[in-house]
Amino acid sequence: MSYTLFYSPGAASMAVHWMLIELGVDFETQLVDIDSGAQRTPAYLQMNPTGTVPTLIVDGVPRHESAALLMLLAERHPAAGLAPSPASRDRAEWLELMIYLANTLLPAMRDWFYAGIDGDAIHADAVKALAQRRIESAWDRLNSHLADGRAYLVHGKLSTVDLLAVTLMRWSRNMRRPATTWQHLSGYIERLRALPSFIDVNQREGLTDWSNSTGRPEQ
Amino acid sequence: MSYTLFYSPGAASMAVHWMLIELGVDFETQLVDIDSGAQRTPAYLQMNPTGTVPTLIVDGVPRHESAALLMLLAERHPAAGLAPSPASRDRAEWLELMIYLANTLLPAMRDWFYAGIDGDAIHADAVKALAQRRIESAWDRLNSHLADGRAYLVHGKLSTVDLLAVTLMRWSRNMRRPATTWQHLSGYIERLRALPSFIDVNQREGLTDWSNSTGRPEQ
Ligand SMILES: N[C@@H](CCC(=O)N[C@@H](CS)C(=O)NCC(=O)O)C(=O)O
Ligand SMILES: N[C@@H](CCC(=O)N[C@@H](CS)C(=O)NCC(=O)O)C(=O)O
Repeated sequence: MSYTLFYSPGAASMAVHWMLIELGVDFETQLVDIDSGAQRTPAYLQMNPTGTVPTLIVDGVPRHESAALLMLLAERHPAAGLAPSPASRDRAEWLELMIYLANTLLPAMRDWFYAGIDGDAIHADAVKALAQRRIESAWDRLNSHLADGRAYLVHGKLSTVDLLAVTLMRWSRNMRRPATTWQHLSGYIERLRALPSFIDVNQREGLTDWSNSTGRPEQ
Repeated sequence: MSYTLFYSPGAASMAVHWMLIELGVDFETQLVDIDSGAQRTPAYLQMNPTGTVPTLIVDGVPRHESAALLMLLAERHPAAGLAPSPASRDRAEWLELMIYLANTLLPAMRDWFYAGIDGDAIHADAVKALAQRRIESAWDRLNSHLADGRAYLVHGKLSTVDLLAVTLMRWSRNMRRPATTWQHLSGYIERLRALPSFIDVNQREGLTDWSNSTGRPEQ
């Protein structure tokens, strides 16, 4: 199994990068400079017609959609246990939360960051206002999900849901109400950020602005 | 395995209803009158805090998110072959398209129909303009996907991707450019609408306004 990840630091590709590290598999990376528009060159668009990162080359074939890539990698590496097995009673909740993140939070984040690029610039504020409402209501929902004291979102252990959720939570760091300001999300985020694989992916992507300040281990 | 589907005619629940019929399994249905706000009663919200349909009660536990429910049902009834098996070479494409529909088309449709309810009514037109652009670009993409003459979106046979895609295509029937006006989508839609399970779900939900005019069988 061979993997090459086309990524941009801190983008949706980060969840896939983090997972590849967590899995401990061999992979290569290719930086895509989205600020200079490298995701819209003919060569990139041929691999990924949506002109976004991530693209993951899986055994020679380019694949897209961060949530789908996480699910695919979980299936290809079942021993890592990053998704409950199909027979597990946690499977339905895992599927539901993966789709909820892909369906509600990720598109709202796209609106927040790209309203004026995907749509008309003069309407960007209107689109962003709705996006902000949806993002904050997603933090409410994930916060209640963690209110019973669970350490991870599903299955009592780390799963692809956490990798995607935390990648998205990071994007709220400069918003009016960052995810870290929700009571149960705060401890959850601190716990996830203490994982060696999270520290590693930040180092590899050159990110320094959303780490646990003390670097102290999970409590 | 017991199933009770909470649905509203023609809503996102239709894809799940269609799949339950296609699977040939036993299930019950409960109509949710979304025009009168039945999806926001305390009893319903307790089952589904998002206040939307579908909810599918699976062995006593309420589950949500149409795309997740289709994937869950495909796993629970593998013999029906409505998803390529994890070992299949079509698996990655199936996952990618399920997520693409859940990620891009479904949220844009939500914006199209609910911009003034989910957000401020005065900004609804701005949100709808962006939604329309995204919906039409999704038809472009699905249209090119079918340009090689394939009968179904993945796997050379009917899958959950088709059930979700056609349910969403139906919603475009009163839009400026309905999905049926795209060259390859047109024949695809006619073929899918000729399936006995599609005719059946329309009858059960009391829908008459988006069927093949002649009712002639698949060519
Ligand atoms: N649905 C896609 C969304 C990917 C996406 O929007 N990526 C952004 C960065 S987070 C991107 O590539 N932006 C560059 C652009 O759109 O030009 C996924 O989940 O993979
Ligand atoms: N992400 C959800 C969306 C469901 C959804 O938006 N359903 C609409 C009908 S298509 C609904 O229940 N609308 C009633 C409301 O929002 O009040 C899913 O795919 O199941």
